[in-house]
Amino acid sequence: MATARPLPTTSLQLPDPLPLDSGQVLDGVTIAYETYGALAPDCRNAILVPHALTGDQHLASPHPITGKPGWWVRMVGPGKPIDTDRFFVICANVIGSCMGSSGPAATHADGRPFAMRFPVITIRDMVRANVALLDVLGIDRLHAVVGGSMGGMQALSLAANFPDRADRVLAIATTARHSAQNIAFHEVGRQAIMADPDWQGGNYYGTGRSPDKGLSVARMAAHITYLSEAGLTGKFGRRFQERPDGTAGGRSFGFDADFQVESYLRYQGLAFTDRFDANSYLYITRAMDYFDLAEEHGGRLADAFAGTPARFCVVSFDTDWLYPTSESRSLVQALNAAAAPVSFVELSAPHGHDSFLLDVPALDRVVKGFLE
Amino acid sequence: MATARPLPTTSLQLPDPLPLDSGQVLDGVTIAYETYGALAPDCRNAILVPHALTGDQHLASPHPITGKPGWWVRMVGPGKPIDTDRFFVICANVIGSCMGSSGPAATHADGRPFAMRFPVITIRDMVRANVALLDVLGIDRLHAVVGGSMGGMQALSLAANFPDRADRVLAIATTARHSAQNIAFHEVGRQAIMADPDWQGGNYYGTGRSPDKGLSVARMAAHITYLSEAGLTGKFGRRFQERPDGTAGGRSFGFDADFQVESYLRYQGLAFTDRFDANSYLYITRAMDYFDLAEEHGGRLADAFAGTPARFCVVSFDTDWLYPTSESRSLVQALNAAAAPVSFVELSAPHGHDSFLLDVPALDRVVKGFLE
Repeated sequence: MATARPLPTTSLQLPDPLPLDSGQVLDGVTIAYETYGALAPDCRNAILVPHALTGDQHLASPHPITGKPGWWVRMVGPGKPIDTDRFFVICANVIGSCMGSSGPAATHADGRPFAMRFPVITIRDMVRANVALLDVLGIDRLHAVVGGSMGGMQALSLAANFPDRADRVLAIATTARHSAQNIAFHEVGRQAIMADPDWQGGNYYGTGRSPDKGLSVARMAAHITYLSEAGLTGKFGRRFQERPDGTAGGRSFGFDADFQVESYLRYQGLAFTDRFDANSYLYITRAMDYFDLAEEHGGRLADAFAGTPARFCVVSFDTDWLYPTSESRSLVQALNAAAAPVSFVELSAPHGHDSFLLDVPALDRVVKGFLE
Repeated sequence: MATARPLPTTSLQLPDPLPLDSGQVLDGVTIAYETYGALAPDCRNAILVPHALTGDQHLASPHPITGKPGWWVRMVGPGKPIDTDRFFVICANVIGSCMGSSGPAATHADGRPFAMRFPVITIRDMVRANVALLDVLGIDRLHAVVGGSMGGMQALSLAANFPDRADRVLAIATTARHSAQNIAFHEVGRQAIMADPDWQGGNYYGTGRSPDKGLSVARMAAHITYLSEAGLTGKFGRRFQERPDGTAGGRSFGFDADFQVESYLRYQGLAFTDRFDANSYLYITRAMDYFDLAEEHGGRLADAFAGTPARFCVVSFDTDWLYPTSESRSLVQALNAAAAPVSFVELSAPHGHDSFLLDVPALDRVVKGFLE
């Protein structure tokens, strides 16, 4: 299958200081991004794809650390639903992250890493950075903004705060505000990281020690929320690990990973620490927990969308218990109340929240159709 | 309201070595237990109430560390559904735990704590210990065994493995086997504990350091699973903490507990470390993850119950996503297949899994009715 050939990751420094919701201002912001396809002479074929919590700009190109294919390579490329033969596709690492954009690991003016001196950011701040990037690229108006999970939050925030910047808004497996349960799971992850003595108050850069164990536990807890109960049962059930000598596994009556699901989770936790910065995990989960689009707009979600002429498409998955369909319905009701054109579909997929990243042909059709 | 007056916690040493599923044998097992009410001359009015993961023998008497009322004081006492004016009620700390029964903190024959040398136990081993206690007490046959959550697993295991020891089996908010998702959440907790350097391979007793941070994270993650999403939203929503000066809270743009739900979870985690031993948490979660009553009986759950004349009552809660109603239905189907008399009810309660401990009058009626 043809894959998109991206330019190598590019990064640029935003020309202007970035004002933040906290009241702080971030100078000299670096944005690392990738683009796919060619920008049309009229600059009207651009699609912005904001990424999720642990995503990055490697949308459809191999990850430089893991070597794995881009996280949405099945969706983005020549002839794919987000067709790089037609569209100029932009994906930028969010501020606060760790793949090249300004974040806690970046260097402060004093020559040392920001660490916890990096300002606490919001989803809207991430969007401000993305919009500043669009300004630099000369893109006044997007054909569409398309995002899943935290990417969907950014898509909604862009529509609400920069109502004339996107013609189409596609929000997948997402929510207009983080629930108490969402916050609770993130808080577990943050506490796991900050409980790790190797976290060192965030000042672990260059010490040769980093809070990998805490970050790994945080990832394990979060990973469960990305999958459905039925999906976990289908994939692992109560199956035991094969023993190292190849014989069938069983109860070891010890604390090794006897069950396949234990081994899988441990691997997911450990592998994550190779590619992600613990402080970034703190900052980005905080931004998500702070997200409440209604509260930002006087307490009424419909008012968030009163000013935008964009068309919306909202997609949920029936097994997603992190951002369940009920959240999407609330969003759609608010869009209706704002008289915004919106289509909504709940797709059936067994994989829970992660369905937006996985093989769900119905999602491909929805995305392709909405971008026509 | 009248409350049961228990004898002070009693403990005894089992007269015989306890054979375990691991093949090991545990000598000199201590069982700490409480009883409420009086044993009838014919010894036929006894009810055993096995406790849940972090429960203990303080069923209806104040906890000696926290000073809080017993964990099921609303259910057990004079005139209550488990009526101590009629019944002799027994609750024993499970082996592996830390409230007086033999567990990892207990002293090994070599004079040092067992720590991780304590054998890995199973739910059936806990039941063996409880049955050995009944033998000592001269109780050949229980009027009933009544348990919620892990207590329900023990109730089912008792029926399956000691079919003539109980006339009635009441299993509440429980399952006949731990699911992949159940195992996954427990594994997160275990990894959080073992990642804490103060765990010291389990040999923290007497060192002045214990893995409180890891145990606290484990408890936080587990606690989320005990509550329903709607319950968390109802109780906390996205409400902010009041500030120390009494003014309304809001985003601090820092990593303190801004949201009430964060503060609540942190408190739950911290308070837990005052009363619970981290190694016990490892052992008991392991026992629960190993639990699969069908597998113990040739792979067919109905066969587990083929030999018992007991009557069963199975209760689930509609908002319990830890042991959802579907698990109870599977159990009831197996009991039907075994031609065991069984009644089943799904109760509506907003609190999720923890409903079995909380104010649900319908549960009181079910318990009272079944014990008549």
